[in-house]
Amino acid sequence: MTDTPEQTSGDESADEIVVLVGNPSPGSRTLEAAVHVATRIAALTEVADHPAVVDLAHHKEQLLGWQSPATEALKHQITSARAIVVASPTYKASYTGLLKLFLDQFARDEWHGIPTIALMTGGSPAHSLAVEVHLAPVLVEIGASLPTRGLYLAGAEIDDPEPTIDAWWHNAEAPLRRALSA
Amino acid sequence: MTDTPEQTSGDESADEIVVLVGNPSPGSRTLEAAVHVATRIAALTEVADHPAVVDLAHHKEQLLGWQSPATEALKHQITSARAIVVASPTYKASYTGLLKLFLDQFARDEWHGIPTIALMTGGSPAHSLAVEVHLAPVLVEIGASLPTRGLYLAGAEIDDPEPTIDAWWHNAEAPLRRALSA
Amino acid sequence: MTDTPEQTSGDESADEIVVLVGNPSPGSRTLEAAVHVATRIAALTEVADHPAVVDLAHHKEQLLGWQSPATEALKHQITSARAIVVASPTYKASYTGLLKLFLDQFARDEWHGIPTIALMTGGSPAHSLAVEVHLAPVLVEIGASLPTRGLYLAGAEIDDPEPTIDAWWHNAEAPLRRALSA
Amino acid sequence: MTDTPEQTSGDESADEIVVLVGNPSPGSRTLEAAVHVATRIAALTEVADHPAVVDLAHHKEQLLGWQSPATEALKHQITSARAIVVASPTYKASYTGLLKLFLDQFARDEWHGIPTIALMTGGSPAHSLAVEVHLAPVLVEIGASLPTRGLYLAGAEIDDPEPTIDAWWHNAEAPLRRALSA
Repeated sequence: MTDTPEQTSGDESADEIVVLVGNPSPGSRTLEAAVHVATRIAALTEVADHPAVVDLAHHKEQLLGWQSPATEALKHQITSARAIVVASPTYKASYTGLLKLFLDQFARDEWHGIPTIALMTGGSPAHSLAVEVHLAPVLVEIGASLPTRGLYLAGAEIDDPEPTIDAWWHNAEAPLRRALSA
Repeated sequence: MTDTPEQTSGDESADEIVVLVGNPSPGSRTLEAAVHVATRIAALTEVADHPAVVDLAHHKEQLLGWQSPATEALKHQITSARAIVVASPTYKASYTGLLKLFLDQFARDEWHGIPTIALMTGGSPAHSLAVEVHLAPVLVEIGASLPTRGLYLAGAEIDDPEPTIDAWWHNAEAPLRRALSA
Repeated sequence: MTDTPEQTSGDESADEIVVLVGNPSPGSRTLEAAVHVATRIAALTEVADHPAVVDLAHHKEQLLGWQSPATEALKHQITSARAIVVASPTYKASYTGLLKLFLDQFARDEWHGIPTIALMTGGSPAHSLAVEVHLAPVLVEIGASLPTRGLYLAGAEIDDPEPTIDAWWHNAEAPLRRALSA
Repeated sequence: MTDTPEQTSGDESADEIVVLVGNPSPGSRTLEAAVHVATRIAALTEVADHPAVVDLAHHKEQLLGWQSPATEALKHQITSARAIVVASPTYKASYTGLLKLFLDQFARDEWHGIPTIALMTGGSPAHSLAVEVHLAPVLVEIGASLPTRGLYLAGAEIDDPEPTIDAWWHNAEAPLRRALSA
């Protein structure tokens, strides 16, 4: 079940860019930054719709068990995506427990090579490496393809992410464009 | 062996060896292996009681919010411990989301140097490094002191952990003995 | 198959698949396994030549300084590649110091998104995660694009790598094919 | 402060605090910061001598082979130490290749539980986590005991490390004191 389920029914879901956010607070700035990134990725495709958002803040209780229908629907939305932006604030120098609770629901390689961007936010740059050493390896384990460096937004960059996203995009665009080719 | 914080109030809690288990299933073999390790550690102290057990499988819902009284009681039990064994099965090449949900509740350095052992279990040895590269850094962030290599039990070792624990203990005993000195 | 940069000069180097090996012993089984992988990658392109090989065992002394002409030639061969397979045996639960000595010579993002495969070999599977948590983050830092899971060959798999490579290829082929598209 | 093993032979070496520096440039600020830390550790012991220094910048060539007498002497100095401070600048988001070249010379568990501090320096805080996720796991593999959080000095902190060391020492002193107890 999705935050905007209307937008994701039917066959066209294969074209969806999905933002997956693991912040326990709904509608976070982490979510907004991830939507910025997803919108750029959507513009690389022929279907430049608004990205769909899976905000785990609205789905906490169901994640404590396994294979609930609501969780299976979320999982289906993810594994049907054209590309995914996975976003988490930094808690204790890593991704949140809430995000991991959801990622734990997937089987090894279940994301079957879907192009994926790892994004984290934090109060300072001190935990920037968490994107590559903690989040990326978990995403690889469940089958994500990570063709670009991840993104870490620190402090004031979270409210004004465009300059940091621009700098990252400079190197990320070409690999992403190839990853999204048919 | 306790599973509720009420049983561990009082001054004597400072001598407690606490086993913290992040398996969503209660009474797991991961828990049993951790109790083995904790019992050895207790034998290094003058107070060789049975270790206390915090089995997060019994405390899931409360971990979705912040600062519930029940969670604060669990946190107090942890931060009052003489030593802690943190144990998790391996999910997606890392610790479980459930364990992280609880660790996220602590402030930076809140474990104030309590001697801590990181233990993980998995179907094969392939994810052994998760102990040192994923679990240990989170524990360091919340202030644990990790004077020894962590322990990874794979496959049949989980049901019969003594030989693996023996081999680990050969190097771990001396640093642990010093870490537990007054 | 070349081992010196002189053999790979010219415009055709843009089509080269390059194997970079960080084993202190020349002609290692790690090198051979990496050539297997590179040969499959070459077959995805229109130029199915033998991969070029940079075997750091033949270039040790020059790596102790900075910017020697011999090292600059090796670096040019790498940064001109169509795709790169970076291979290392496991030393102390990570890549070798020799490999890192060479990777340290590159600037941040200098590999400008070249599709890259990380491959490590080890006596047992215990250090498998080193590919994703140690080697991959360094490669990302210097600008590699890692569209697939890395490969870890353990024990007998090193001498007979085809079954393990086959299993890996099942998921890796599609992202690699897209990454190599023009 | 010594730089050659000859100066530290004899029985008294068991009381030595050794600084091991993996900067390719000799006499670096990384070395100086590590000596600051080592001097504090020495003050916790009854033998408050100047720490000994192994500056790998003076020992590069010998590290390209195995078991040279000069390297064996350095290794003996390390494994005879009372405590070790391992220090590296950050290259490509991790420790230097030069440091790893030396650490590769040790067998698993050869440091037999010697209390060890991991210290890294970098231009910005962005790679701070490298201490815990890259350097610490390698040190654990060769048998170091790491009873405290590692130290990362970024930018201006390298030239004026005392405030950062003070803040770190606040939590590190008690575990270190216990680790150094007889």
